[in-house]
Amino acid sequence: MKNNNILIIGSVAIDSIETPFGKRESVLGGSATYSSMSASNFSKFVSIVAVVGKDFPNRYLELFKKRNIDLTGLEVDKEHKTFKWKGDYNYDLNSPRTIYTHLNVFQDFDPKIPEPSKKSRFIFLANIDPDLQNKILSQVRNPELIVLDTMNYWISKKKKSLIKLLKKIDIFLLNDGEARQLSGEINLKKAANFIISSGSPAVIIKKGEHGVLFFSKHFSFSAPAYLLETIRDPTGAGDTFAGGMLGYLSTVRKINSQNIRKSLIYGSIMASFVVEDFSVGRLIKLSKSDINKRYRELKRVTSF
Amino acid sequence: MKNNNILIIGSVAIDSIETPFGKRESVLGGSATYSSMSASNFSKFVSIVAVVGKDFPNRYLELFKKRNIDLTGLEVDKEHKTFKWKGDYNYDLNSPRTIYTHLNVFQDFDPKIPEPSKKSRFIFLANIDPDLQNKILSQVRNPELIVLDTMNYWISKKKKSLIKLLKKIDIFLLNDGEARQLSGEINLKKAANFIISSGSPAVIIKKGEHGVLFFSKHFSFSAPAYLLETIRDPTGAGDTFAGGMLGYLSTVRKINSQNIRKSLIYGSIMASFVVEDFSVGRLIKLSKSDINKRYRELKRVTSF
Repeated sequence: MKNNNILIIGSVAIDSIETPFGKRESVLGGSATYSSMSASNFSKFVSIVAVVGKDFPNRYLELFKKRNIDLTGLEVDKEHKTFKWKGDYNYDLNSPRTIYTHLNVFQDFDPKIPEPSKKSRFIFLANIDPDLQNKILSQVRNPELIVLDTMNYWISKKKKSLIKLLKKIDIFLLNDGEARQLSGEINLKKAANFIISSGSPAVIIKKGEHGVLFFSKHFSFSAPAYLLETIRDPTGAGDTFAGGMLGYLSTVRKINSQNIRKSLIYGSIMASFVVEDFSVGRLIKLSKSDINKRYRELKRVTSF
Repeated sequence: MKNNNILIIGSVAIDSIETPFGKRESVLGGSATYSSMSASNFSKFVSIVAVVGKDFPNRYLELFKKRNIDLTGLEVDKEHKTFKWKGDYNYDLNSPRTIYTHLNVFQDFDPKIPEPSKKSRFIFLANIDPDLQNKILSQVRNPELIVLDTMNYWISKKKKSLIKLLKKIDIFLLNDGEARQLSGEINLKKAANFIISSGSPAVIIKKGEHGVLFFSKHFSFSAPAYLLETIRDPTGAGDTFAGGMLGYLSTVRKINSQNIRKSLIYGSIMASFVVEDFSVGRLIKLSKSDINKRYRELKRVTSF
């Protein structure tokens, strides 16, 4: 019997970020962080599998616990430091320039899924080495929905492993540049066709401020982004999107096309919140009514 | 008493275009051409005011006549040649590189609105010198809707004239880059606020393949683009959008928010057709059912 758990495997990191709107040193970051904090706005059953170092601040652990995020699968590696990333953005805010990436604990990360989490209904394989992602899939027991993320680095370094993975998942999540890189197609519809014919039943192409596109054999969907006046820090927007999407899907009885559409809108809305502040500042202060207000607004500005 | 005419003032040109998908020499182009051909799919009362030279091919005049487009206001200047533009696009297809612009007849163009057209219900001021656009407005008699287009060139050369015009129109139409250039704001919502506070009651920001945004004091709307696999020539997409929008609005009884939303979708759909072929090749072969099929499809892929 599956539980209604959302299991997220990814990174928990210490980020240093500079944008035209400010600067933060050593704030909480990482793909598992953003996606779990986002999902926790919808579900009380969110677990992460990740690794941190001995230097990981207790106050950040407390943040997860306060959000009811299960940390059984969070390994503490006493030998190494936490994964660290530093980047900055210029005014276009589209993609950061990496100043450094210190893998630290992630150098030898061997993710182990705790027993109860193996029966999770939802799996989010956040961006890590596709070979590790594959290893994780061999540990889980027939989840209902597996969402896979990746990044340009793995597309160039481990394209074969990545393509192999596509047959084992349900939804592949990547941004427009990555979709073009993987498929060799400029046109996003053609890129999506390539991905689907490579084995992924569905694909979500994230276009940042231009929204997201969903493609599957059964239906397509174009979700606009919620329009903001102020974007202070775009870090984590994609993972927050994924967390919101899975979070919403965990609340519905049936994963059908109507609910997938809605989940993409909830994902977009969660992403619209996270970029309004640095780190997870905005995600941990949200109420259900904040979220639903934006949902209704987005519905209003897109209906015709 | 106003008539239901759509009056378009802009250019009729001879274009030479190269894209990654082909090459055409001396084809029919120009803002008045694209917008009137597009509008003529909705209305039998489309008039243009423009100028061509003695070299303008008869077969192109026939194309307008076949579409029922009124050419009373099309001046033929025996002294000069037709306006000519040559450009090419690379794979991103976003903006062309201009190889040459020969203004020719447009150097001394002094647009005169024929008497019956002065009472037109709809005016589209396609991209020309804002001082000329202003002169045109002094000739028309209280139209119901005035839509203004422009380009980066006029924003840098005649910003003051352009800003002054905004108080006299109803909807300002420009692309994202132009909106940023005019307002000095990176963020499109802020750019729209600047334009509205400068006097334009509403603004449409065209984002190419990412759709269009509409802003007014009363409501906002985000229209997705119709997703294509093949874009052969993006020339004229913006003018075709405007023509479709005004064409649709001329068929409804009341210009309210619901109909403006629909008109933006029809504009997007007309733009999605024109880019599938060079010049106006696709616009002159469309049926009502082609258009309505895409309308329904766009509705399906965006509803949630």
